[in-house]
Amino acid sequence: MNRQFLLQEIQKKQSYLCVGLDADMDRIPTHLHQYDDPIFEFNRQIIDATKDYCIAYKPNIAFYEALGNKGWTALQKTLEYIPDEHFVIADAKRGDIGNTSRLYAKAFFETFNFDAVTVAPYMGIDSVQPFLEFEDKWVILLGLTSNKGSQDFQFAQQDQEMPLYEKVMRKAQTWGNPDNLMFVTGATHPEKFAELRAIAPDNFFLVPGIGAQGGDLRKVSAYGLNAMAGLLVNSSRGIIYAGNGEDFANHAQRVAIVLQQEMAEILSNKFSTEV
Amino acid sequence: MNRQFLLQEIQKKQSYLCVGLDADMDRIPTHLHQYDDPIFEFNRQIIDATKDYCIAYKPNIAFYEALGNKGWTALQKTLEYIPDEHFVIADAKRGDIGNTSRLYAKAFFETFNFDAVTVAPYMGIDSVQPFLEFEDKWVILLGLTSNKGSQDFQFAQQDQEMPLYEKVMRKAQTWGNPDNLMFVTGATHPEKFAELRAIAPDNFFLVPGIGAQGGDLRKVSAYGLNAMAGLLVNSSRGIIYAGNGEDFANHAQRVAIVLQQEMAEILSNKFSTEV
Repeated sequence: MNRQFLLQEIQKKQSYLCVGLDADMDRIPTHLHQYDDPIFEFNRQIIDATKDYCIAYKPNIAFYEALGNKGWTALQKTLEYIPDEHFVIADAKRGDIGNTSRLYAKAFFETFNFDAVTVAPYMGIDSVQPFLEFEDKWVILLGLTSNKGSQDFQFAQQDQEMPLYEKVMRKAQTWGNPDNLMFVTGATHPEKFAELRAIAPDNFFLVPGIGAQGGDLRKVSAYGLNAMAGLLVNSSRGIIYAGNGEDFANHAQRVAIVLQQEMAEILSNKFSTEV
Repeated sequence: MNRQFLLQEIQKKQSYLCVGLDADMDRIPTHLHQYDDPIFEFNRQIIDATKDYCIAYKPNIAFYEALGNKGWTALQKTLEYIPDEHFVIADAKRGDIGNTSRLYAKAFFETFNFDAVTVAPYMGIDSVQPFLEFEDKWVILLGLTSNKGSQDFQFAQQDQEMPLYEKVMRKAQTWGNPDNLMFVTGATHPEKFAELRAIAPDNFFLVPGIGAQGGDLRKVSAYGLNAMAGLLVNSSRGIIYAGNGEDFANHAQRVAIVLQQEMAEILSNKFSTEV
């Protein structure tokens, strides 16, 4: 999927919401356990309930991998079920040397037909480049993450007098471009968004940390949006576990609608003042 | 597996060799394609040929993941085939936030019963800690990697006037200890091994980059060995693709023996001079 199509979907749906499909056997409603494939059934109902309000889905691969073959089968069925116009992200945070990265890229982009993969930067250029070589596919590189441990290394000042996350984001822009490279920038650092947007003016940001992790949609959007929208804001637990009875999908839908409506308002303010 | 057992195996076999099981359908001998599970058959013959000369096996998970369910099945069968006294490393380079890392830990340590997993440090403490909570299981944290891209971020000077890899290795020692934490230190940086050993005197190092990547076993061992041996030196392609005819396993064995004999000599020099 290319950037133009992504922008069109954002305009059409007035939403830049991404729903995190982190289906966990220990947290899905218990009545689903009677199904042959409870994880797929959970995802299917979540997708039906939220597809009109979001433009992207992001399964975190850990949840599927933890279940072995059953998990991979549920993932494959989920991907086939997601409508074509949705952008689909493998949240895998992979990063390995060249020939191995190429295999991961093949697995996610070809075997599973994901649009994007999250990638960790620690190993540098040859861990990222192989993912950039697929047409209309995307690397979403970890920049400034939303978790507590982001304090450990990402903020450390580097020799060029910038923190590590900035160095990563600047260097990676010499490897890819706004048509194949996005960055993960956590909503738990809203005060950083003006700076992050200055570091990478044109790249899309995938923003986790809204909802369960406490990030603020308005603050993130105020500085994060650019002329091509440039934001995918993710909520996982806040949506998919909004309810845990038989009507869980209705609760998920309700939360997705609240977020979408807030996004519609933000988008209309943003783009009306700019015209 | 605990550190004491690892040391005993090193002493018994006079070897600290780890064989990388990076079985690739495009590179395994073509006569194996006739088997139901060519990847497992390849691994089975490699294991039979090398098990007396190595103390560890390290499947790089990318090679299995790229094949979908078939790959995971081949991996499972391979793990069941590896003798119990071998230390088995999932080279997965995972790293995600807490609840997700816990799932990866469960997948590798419980579903697959690996002894160790390689982990990427970029996301900090909560991406590492969940792996440290399993008894007699190990985190092998990326320190200074063997690939070209290790130059991009790992050498950058940090605010405490040390390169990033050093900061990672020092900080991680406040999270884990030599009984549950190893570091990846690439053989392509042999000039760094005295320094690396000073940074982490007691932790085991997993050293990739011998063979195909050009690292030097003697240089690495001269500074890398410690009183508990402290080294696992990995060779993947150099061993498993030493031949590609029907006798490929004999060629793999020949290379493994050469490395084991070199290690035996290094160990006997090292430990005889110390006594």
